[in-house]
Amino acid sequence: MAAQQILIDGRWRAAHAASTFRAENPRTREPLPEEYPVSDWSDCDEALDAAVRAGAELRQVSADRLAAFLDAFASRIEARKAEFVEIAHAETALPVTPRLADGELPRTTNQLRQAAAAAREGSWAMATIDTKNDIRSVLGPLGPICVFGPNNFPFAFGSVSGGDFAAAIAAGNPVIGKANSSHPGTTRLFAVEALAALAETGLPPATVQLIYRTKHEDGERLVSDSRVGGTGYTGSRSAGLQLKAAADRAGKPIYLELSSVNPVVILPGALRERFDDIVGQFATSCLMGTGQFCTNPGMIVLLAGEESERFIAAIGAKFQAAPVGTLLSRSVASALARGLQTLRAAGAKLVTGDTPGGGAGYSHANSLLQVSGSDFLKNPEQLQTEVFGNASLVVVAADSAEARRVLDHLEGNLTGCIYSDTAGSDDAIYAELESPLRQRVGRLLNDKMPTGVAVSPAMNHGGPFPATGHPGFTAVGIPASLRRFAMLQCYDGVRPQRLPASLKNTNPNGAMWRLVDGQWTQKDVT
Amino acid sequence: MAAQQILIDGRWRAAHAASTFRAENPRTREPLPEEYPVSDWSDCDEALDAAVRAGAELRQVSADRLAAFLDAFASRIEARKAEFVEIAHAETALPVTPRLADGELPRTTNQLRQAAAAAREGSWAMATIDTKNDIRSVLGPLGPICVFGPNNFPFAFGSVSGGDFAAAIAAGNPVIGKANSSHPGTTRLFAVEALAALAETGLPPATVQLIYRTKHEDGERLVSDSRVGGTGYTGSRSAGLQLKAAADRAGKPIYLELSSVNPVVILPGALRERFDDIVGQFATSCLMGTGQFCTNPGMIVLLAGEESERFIAAIGAKFQAAPVGTLLSRSVASALARGLQTLRAAGAKLVTGDTPGGGAGYSHANSLLQVSGSDFLKNPEQLQTEVFGNASLVVVAADSAEARRVLDHLEGNLTGCIYSDTAGSDDAIYAELESPLRQRVGRLLNDKMPTGVAVSPAMNHGGPFPATGHPGFTAVGIPASLRRFAMLQCYDGVRPQRLPASLKNTNPNGAMWRLVDGQWTQKDVT
Repeated sequence: MAAQQILIDGRWRAAHAASTFRAENPRTREPLPEEYPVSDWSDCDEALDAAVRAGAELRQVSADRLAAFLDAFASRIEARKAEFVEIAHAETALPVTPRLADGELPRTTNQLRQAAAAAREGSWAMATIDTKNDIRSVLGPLGPICVFGPNNFPFAFGSVSGGDFAAAIAAGNPVIGKANSSHPGTTRLFAVEALAALAETGLPPATVQLIYRTKHEDGERLVSDSRVGGTGYTGSRSAGLQLKAAADRAGKPIYLELSSVNPVVILPGALRERFDDIVGQFATSCLMGTGQFCTNPGMIVLLAGEESERFIAAIGAKFQAAPVGTLLSRSVASALARGLQTLRAAGAKLVTGDTPGGGAGYSHANSLLQVSGSDFLKNPEQLQTEVFGNASLVVVAADSAEARRVLDHLEGNLTGCIYSDTAGSDDAIYAELESPLRQRVGRLLNDKMPTGVAVSPAMNHGGPFPATGHPGFTAVGIPASLRRFAMLQCYDGVRPQRLPASLKNTNPNGAMWRLVDGQWTQKDVT
Repeated sequence: MAAQQILIDGRWRAAHAASTFRAENPRTREPLPEEYPVSDWSDCDEALDAAVRAGAELRQVSADRLAAFLDAFASRIEARKAEFVEIAHAETALPVTPRLADGELPRTTNQLRQAAAAAREGSWAMATIDTKNDIRSVLGPLGPICVFGPNNFPFAFGSVSGGDFAAAIAAGNPVIGKANSSHPGTTRLFAVEALAALAETGLPPATVQLIYRTKHEDGERLVSDSRVGGTGYTGSRSAGLQLKAAADRAGKPIYLELSSVNPVVILPGALRERFDDIVGQFATSCLMGTGQFCTNPGMIVLLAGEESERFIAAIGAKFQAAPVGTLLSRSVASALARGLQTLRAAGAKLVTGDTPGGGAGYSHANSLLQVSGSDFLKNPEQLQTEVFGNASLVVVAADSAEARRVLDHLEGNLTGCIYSDTAGSDDAIYAELESPLRQRVGRLLNDKMPTGVAVSPAMNHGGPFPATGHPGFTAVGIPASLRRFAMLQCYDGVRPQRLPASLKNTNPNGAMWRLVDGQWTQKDVT
């Protein structure tokens, strides 16, 4: 069978490839029929040249047309919803419903439409006008954006469909998508519909391009190429750090989402007050999607006591009773087993799990480990190993001072939660623990688990390194996520007719918020 | 003589230093009397510990008190203006007037007061509230900020007085200043007054600390230390890239201003229309401050023709006639001579200059070089060597197509200018050249030279690598420059009484602009 074609410069064509790969059905461990090429550098090179040309054209295109493309793409995805769900299910084993059909697909089209609305409205670009000095600035396109999507969200974080894609396009950039090797067919189908939507709305065909895989060194070459504007990457920490090093050397922005254990602190009063509720919330959050979320609660911090012992036992029972889900791929399954081994070698004790999951697919038993605060502090680095999947580590601190030391040793995380009682008995400890946690996480939650990531303007799906590569940006949430793929462009004394629409005296659509002489306004400059 | 003391944790004390250095008077090449220590790592280590403690305290301090400190500091600087000007003049040879006394010092206190006003008002932090989901986010302090100031602005970019310093403090961070070795005495005097202003306003004494110099490897260790929030660096490209590599490996934000040749394109119609005016503007801009500006026009692009030849001759005459200024230091003088050598070895021809400048101080004759567009394209990398000082290179392109190819080969720059006539005869070429230039510069100017950098909210003193390390940020301009030293902090379902003031329903001062449910407003959330 001929390998699937890549999409370069508006044309599906055979890749220049020395090898191919096949995805697997995670429920059967059987390879799926289609072959996909591992592109040589020449494919990347051609994509970059085409993207540069498309980028130059896009800079002349109105925001309305970018928005029209994103809307048209969303509608086309909905029209083939059944096919998207089917192929994604085959490639990832994620449940058809509610996950793929009712959750992730609507979320994806919603993101595309939010991005379209943000592009049309224009406030994301923070147009700033100083009338006295006639200096004006606005965020403008960064250039071709490479998007490396993760394995766990074939739609909502997909390389040519997800949040990075939508943000990059809405900010006026062409995208070169690198499919995730676990779901290349899903990604290919998105590219088919994207190309059709580009034709429908008259955008340059090279606005969206797709390759499936490259050699590692070509990936590094891609993100650091002088023609690239920047990169969005979501995936494993080791591969991400390789790309980061290459991009950093070349001075190319790269936004990464790498790893996070998402500490959840549950204070004694909360356990006393809402024991069953919290047990249920935690078990659901940790096992949902077989735990394969960036914001999966991978570490629970408790204070020593009878209630905490009872909590660990209750979670252990829940984990044993819950069905074992299928993991996304062979590599996820082996990384999960390896991660648990690392934690145990570093001193964590098994509460339940860490056995093969049974069945025909990739799986591992729901696993709960525990370690004392003092043992954690002997080896905090190893004990923060992210175990991606249906597993979590409970850290039992002797007291609040030890809990604080545990938090002081945390790496950067996407999220951090604190559960406390409503009567106020936990408030003093909350105050003690909030400060170290706050500085180490992008999103601080009260009394709920971190797995829900609303697409809200106020969301931060980001955090200090190594959760991401820069603590000032979010990968989820519009309009903020658009600003990652932009450069600040100042116009100093530039003649009025030469200014971009966003910086002319007349507000281009009457709706764009602009910072004029220090005040946010939707009015014209008079 | 005992070496000067460093300022650590609110106390002036002797450094742990294996060696010392002395600054020189650039007008006489004589060492100045004071000795300054080259700190060992233990000084950095102690400063970091103290800064972490100060940072934790600062997070509890109201923005009003940060602002009060910045205002008090500005007033104290003004009260000792004569001393500041005197010592800076001795250390840098920059003219007392108008430069130091009438230009840079007022600019510096103005920046501090603008930063105070921004902190007090609070809009810089972009508080964002989603009432439906009860998700709220705001930019918060990043942690201890290391500031490495440059040689050429002893006040306005000084490590404990300049734009990075003011922005870092206004955003709520403590600063560890590393003095520039060419003006340690000026920096010391700022630290004296900063410490007094901290006492006056009740901020933690370790909010401002000062060391003078470290070994290179300790500088790299400093910017990548886990206790550091981030770094601001302005200086030479080679040293900056070393620091960048270290910070990048540790995932620590570092904002750099490295080098820029600031291309100025002068189109034929403009030369015909305003010949004398443009000659005057260019000569003034290039020789002002002996050319030692980050935005010095180091490259002029002309189209071949009689008028352009006449322009080069006129500039040459101006350069010869103008007095030769004193350079900031021995290293600036030797780098300037070396840079001219590099340009000449790469094919640039001498129009005038490139001889010793004469006199007792560090100097080099005002130097103008020229190269054809085709020769430039044979060696674009070498011919973009930044020659920091009173020198510039004219590139004469055969036609607009060649000029475009020249621009296509430019590295990232802080600024780019295009001069065109007012009658419209240059408009077609403007349109052709604007696009490649726009993508390669942070600030695009029309019909004026780039050396003026107004402290305006719309200013961009930034640009693509290697002008800076990230094209989305500006080092000058308030409030935008504050956002470099901040992390995005999201509060998801956090109880109302635990929210920071900026995110509570009630607008904390009635003046802070907040993005509430997609609309910028100064009103309370109802």
